[in-house]
Amino acid sequence: MPSLPHAIAEERLAHARIGRLATVTPTGRPHIVPVCFALDGRRIVTAVDAKPKATTELARLENVRATGRASLLVDHYEDDWSELWWVRVDGVAAVIDSDRAIDALASKYEQYRATRPAGPVIVIEPERWRSWIPSGA
Amino acid sequence: MPSLPHAIAEERLAHARIGRLATVTPTGRPHIVPVCFALDGRRIVTAVDAKPKATTELARLENVRATGRASLLVDHYEDDWSELWWVRVDGVAAVIDSDRAIDALASKYEQYRATRPAGPVIVIEPERWRSWIPSGA
Repeated sequence: MPSLPHAIAEERLAHARIGRLATVTPTGRPHIVPVCFALDGRRIVTAVDAKPKATTELARLENVRATGRASLLVDHYEDDWSELWWVRVDGVAAVIDSDRAIDALASKYEQYRATRPAGPVIVIEPERWRSWIPSGA
Repeated sequence: MPSLPHAIAEERLAHARIGRLATVTPTGRPHIVPVCFALDGRRIVTAVDAKPKATTELARLENVRATGRASLLVDHYEDDWSELWWVRVDGVAAVIDSDRAIDALASKYEQYRATRPAGPVIVIEPERWRSWIPSGA
């Protein structure tokens, strides 16, 4: 499968403004939400922020606590399919409190500098990086 | 949680060019890939197409066969966070062969009219539609 060199995959992921966080519920069902995120060293971090959420949206926290795993996907779409790409990280995840993680998020997003997220952080320790580009790209 | 009226959520999902498909592996891990998809009546359909994939990328088919469930997310990001939105469908999923589903995909994507997907189709029967918009949007 055609893929990106790791350094480029990591750079594209680091610069993506939005990712999609996939987790698994305690009953084994898929769960997916868009998230703002940042790289903090080799880890990926995302915070529960001030954007309004249903109580059930904190499903993401329950899922990570129950399963210890998460995947984050960033992708690029154009109607010219030769320009498609995606990067995914699968890893071990945990819910933590981390000022350092919030600092990484605030460094990336001005909104987090204006309103520092109070919530806990989901941290993903990557076990596997995967990427995809079309053949010939 | 602020959300979209169902008709608008369905319209936004129907017109999104790309979605993210979340499934669960037979061993209970999250899996997520970007997919082209279409609405076919009330069902959501996505096909294994000619874009090159690793054998393991067909994990999505194995996952659906093993678990019978999938979620599809579409979202919109802008640096102006008052413009964010997402729509998600969680449902029962199956791997089928369906000319009608391929027709729905070909109707949406010119690439599928030029090169009709040969592969099997994942069909999601929605059990729950969820959407999100910022407060005050």
